[in-house]
Amino acid sequence: MNLDDVRAAARVLDGVAHRTPVMTSRTLGDGVFLKCESFQRGGAFKFRGAYNFLSSLDEEERARGVCAISSGNHAQAVALSARELGIRAAILMPEDAPPAKLAAVDGYGAEIETYDRYSMPQVQAGREFAERRQMTFVTAYDDPRIAAGAGTAALELLEDAGELDLLLVPVGGGGLMAGCATVIKALHPGARVIGVEASGVVKRSLEAGERIQIPVPRHIADGQMLTQPGEWTFEVMRELVDDVVLCSDDEILAAMAFLFDRLKLVTEPSGAIATAALLAGHVRPEGARTGVLISGGNVGLERFVGLMG
Amino acid sequence: MNLDDVRAAARVLDGVAHRTPVMTSRTLGDGVFLKCESFQRGGAFKFRGAYNFLSSLDEEERARGVCAISSGNHAQAVALSARELGIRAAILMPEDAPPAKLAAVDGYGAEIETYDRYSMPQVQAGREFAERRQMTFVTAYDDPRIAAGAGTAALELLEDAGELDLLLVPVGGGGLMAGCATVIKALHPGARVIGVEASGVVKRSLEAGERIQIPVPRHIADGQMLTQPGEWTFEVMRELVDDVVLCSDDEILAAMAFLFDRLKLVTEPSGAIATAALLAGHVRPEGARTGVLISGGNVGLERFVGLMG
Repeated sequence: MNLDDVRAAARVLDGVAHRTPVMTSRTLGDGVFLKCESFQRGGAFKFRGAYNFLSSLDEEERARGVCAISSGNHAQAVALSARELGIRAAILMPEDAPPAKLAAVDGYGAEIETYDRYSMPQVQAGREFAERRQMTFVTAYDDPRIAAGAGTAALELLEDAGELDLLLVPVGGGGLMAGCATVIKALHPGARVIGVEASGVVKRSLEAGERIQIPVPRHIADGQMLTQPGEWTFEVMRELVDDVVLCSDDEILAAMAFLFDRLKLVTEPSGAIATAALLAGHVRPEGARTGVLISGGNVGLERFVGLMG
Repeated sequence: MNLDDVRAAARVLDGVAHRTPVMTSRTLGDGVFLKCESFQRGGAFKFRGAYNFLSSLDEEERARGVCAISSGNHAQAVALSARELGIRAAILMPEDAPPAKLAAVDGYGAEIETYDRYSMPQVQAGREFAERRQMTFVTAYDDPRIAAGAGTAALELLEDAGELDLLLVPVGGGGLMAGCATVIKALHPGARVIGVEASGVVKRSLEAGERIQIPVPRHIADGQMLTQPGEWTFEVMRELVDDVVLCSDDEILAAMAFLFDRLKLVTEPSGAIATAALLAGHVRPEGARTGVLISGGNVGLERFVGLMG
């Protein structure tokens, strides 16, 4: 996957995905630009990749319908993209996924099955689900079409903010990171790309030089529940990611509160984590023109009040 | 005041005020456009009018400094505008104003005095404060420069959304309404303009044909605590406003929850009230291209959690 693939995805998404706003905050610094994918359709960047993936399917694949496994945002993205393209969708979701996310997927007309995410690795559960359903499986991250779609967020950010020296990206499976890193390293080769995560699985994998496996993590960033980085995305990240930093639950909550009060932004925990890295001082831009990906806002009012109360 | 005054204000504000995003929601309807002044500097539309007013002052007026009385958003707007223009500011605020608003005004470097808003009409308290301080008084709404600044929000909305048949505007003192109604009636004379309020003082005044006075209302829309419409704004509203509808606290809270969950927007009660009028069915667009002003987002996390919990 290269910059041309991302540009092709941008053409597929033109007029379908929202061009989300870029916000600034003097408190964060004069050269800090927040790309607000919380305002993306489906409430997160995931729509970009899912729609790009589904658009690439041939007639036979579309006719079989699509299925996916996801803790929430990818589920919504696949359900919404499938509805837009007139494709049948079935989604396997963890039974403890936030109710707001379950309700949204249902609202987009997809069929839902639930499973216990603490009893079976996601990859295995997804594979079994796809075999049983005989539908086209839509990976949440480990595919160049998904990453190219996600990378269009970085393309727009650079168009709106101008040249950047530093880009902070929430990292789970690595689809958003693979797409965004590909874009910025192609356009501004000197820029640093830093991933931000809650569990440390990506950081430790990069340090080890191979994908490590961890137990299902228990932190508040439900968008980053992976036990292992993606296979293909890991190779991209090894090549393009300069560093990965970790944020604690308290740091994430502080960032969500800051974004609510000061920027009037609704974020979910994984959506606020790159901002948390700045606020907590894990990354110090020191004058660098800095892009920050706010990856999603699907926290749900009830959970937000619970987290903040 | 006419469209040219609003266009002149737009030139004054160019590069100083944010051009706030316009959002859409399929749930609200295909032709509904939300102008999100919650993302304006200072967290509300008020910055537009205050900055335009302060920019019009002569050297002597600037040297004396400026003062204002406000429950919050106008206070922040005057404090922020004064800081930008290098003018000294003192603000009289109700002692029960939301803590987030008091803190923000303090943060902008203005001096704060507090008073009991249930013991003295705001107009009287403001007059006494201005006399005592011998500073230039900045009215929150009852001045063409304030209204012309506020009207730039409607100008931008029409540029981004195209022609509108209907415009819903939160109405308190009437500055935002006077500015926005002037713009849309000049550009699209057939469009209907509807005010939305919590207390009914504007509706009853328009029905009576004169400004009535009510006791300080006790509802959650702290941005609409006025006991009487403005003198000048009332004359503008008599001429240009087609109707005024009321929303209850519960309807406002439902709109705040909807905007949080579905549009990822942080709104304060008076900021959500025009959306509440749509959701509660007090206004039925029935296919009309509809603009909705979201006037502000300064609710503060703690108060939001309290209201929603």
